[in-house]
Amino acid sequence: MGEHTVRSFDEELQHVDQLIRDMGDLSGAMVAGAIRALLTSDQALAQNVVADDTIMDAKQRDLDNSAITLIAKRQPMAQDLRAVVGAIRMAGDLERIGDLAKNIAKRVGAVGQSPTPRNLSHSIDAMAQLVLGQVRGVVDLYVARQAEGLKDLRADDQKIDIQYTAVFRELLTYMMEDPRNITACTHLLFCAKNLERIGDHVTNIAENAYFVVTGTQLPLNRPKVDETTTTVPA
Amino acid sequence: MGEHTVRSFDEELQHVDQLIRDMGDLSGAMVAGAIRALLTSDQALAQNVVADDTIMDAKQRDLDNSAITLIAKRQPMAQDLRAVVGAIRMAGDLERIGDLAKNIAKRVGAVGQSPTPRNLSHSIDAMAQLVLGQVRGVVDLYVARQAEGLKDLRADDQKIDIQYTAVFRELLTYMMEDPRNITACTHLLFCAKNLERIGDHVTNIAENAYFVVTGTQLPLNRPKVDETTTTVPA
Repeated sequence: MGEHTVRSFDEELQHVDQLIRDMGDLSGAMVAGAIRALLTSDQALAQNVVADDTIMDAKQRDLDNSAITLIAKRQPMAQDLRAVVGAIRMAGDLERIGDLAKNIAKRVGAVGQSPTPRNLSHSIDAMAQLVLGQVRGVVDLYVARQAEGLKDLRADDQKIDIQYTAVFRELLTYMMEDPRNITACTHLLFCAKNLERIGDHVTNIAENAYFVVTGTQLPLNRPKVDETTTTVPA
Repeated sequence: MGEHTVRSFDEELQHVDQLIRDMGDLSGAMVAGAIRALLTSDQALAQNVVADDTIMDAKQRDLDNSAITLIAKRQPMAQDLRAVVGAIRMAGDLERIGDLAKNIAKRVGAVGQSPTPRNLSHSIDAMAQLVLGQVRGVVDLYVARQAEGLKDLRADDQKIDIQYTAVFRELLTYMMEDPRNITACTHLLFCAKNLERIGDHVTNIAENAYFVVTGTQLPLNRPKVDETTTTVPA
């Protein structure tokens, strides 16, 4: 839609909401693509994910501009203002998820040149599936305005953190076992960390979506299991 | 200042600008503290940095709320709207810098338990000083409204990227040399990556600050040297 189109207030709100859905769908596709590219060493797919990030950035700029213009021009009251501000924040997190998926995709080449131990692929895949489920889930729950579901989904981030700690420790042992694993494992370490951070952005989105839907904040202190910053395996 | 205080439009703009300065000063202090704590294994200092992040988050929430209220209530025109929207974006990047400094600080314990090779400390310190200079520089240039300086500063991010690539390769070789280095080097790898990402956030801030000051965008395609995602040392 061109910027000179005259839109009603509701149409403007719907435009912002549609952009969030688009960005949500794209972030799910990018995460799924990056994981598949990583686990199957698919360079062409990895390139697609990298290219998708440009679309994501353009969508965010569109949303940001639409939302700010809407606030300045329409002076929306409480609930609508909450929805628009919430959309700006959710868009920020969705854009970051796209960025992290792109970063995983960019590492496909470096990882692919070393044989990855089979068990390790399994652990990373398990973590990736948890993350992908969260990314897709949070967008669906926001679209369906399911407050309770968003609350439960936020709590599930803990599972990702636990799986990340397991992958982190496993990668360290592979590196210690054989120096030839170090380069690939280092890149996989960053991929796993990126997946864990995608989980954190999903948490932010769940919190903002909950606020948009209910008008109240979820309690701040989600139990955060972040063990790897202090992990020193024997 | 309490939220019920009646403020003039200019006072509201100044409040937002003051919060950006506060967050800028705090981010510089947090980055400096995290680096010093890491290189001297100072656990108490590391704890201070972690605690500072709560203050940073509170400042960002204050800024966000002030800025959104200001836009909704005052319907600012072009230049003022640009300043307020720019402030929201800069605050987002400053908050992320604080987060990354906190993450470095949280790794101090895990790194400190292994002896870090002396040359490596030197490389990381060199990278850290570049990053710290950029963080402090971007805030000073924004406060002084120095558009040309912001442009130059953005270009300097390349130096950080080059130094990061050097640190990354060096860390890999230490890990390959002796498996006992792997755990500490892994944490240092994340610390170096965090420093590189702080540089990226400084770049974003420079771009937003330039836009606030001049009303025009810096050209989009900054040359980005990100070699480590494809680095596979022989």
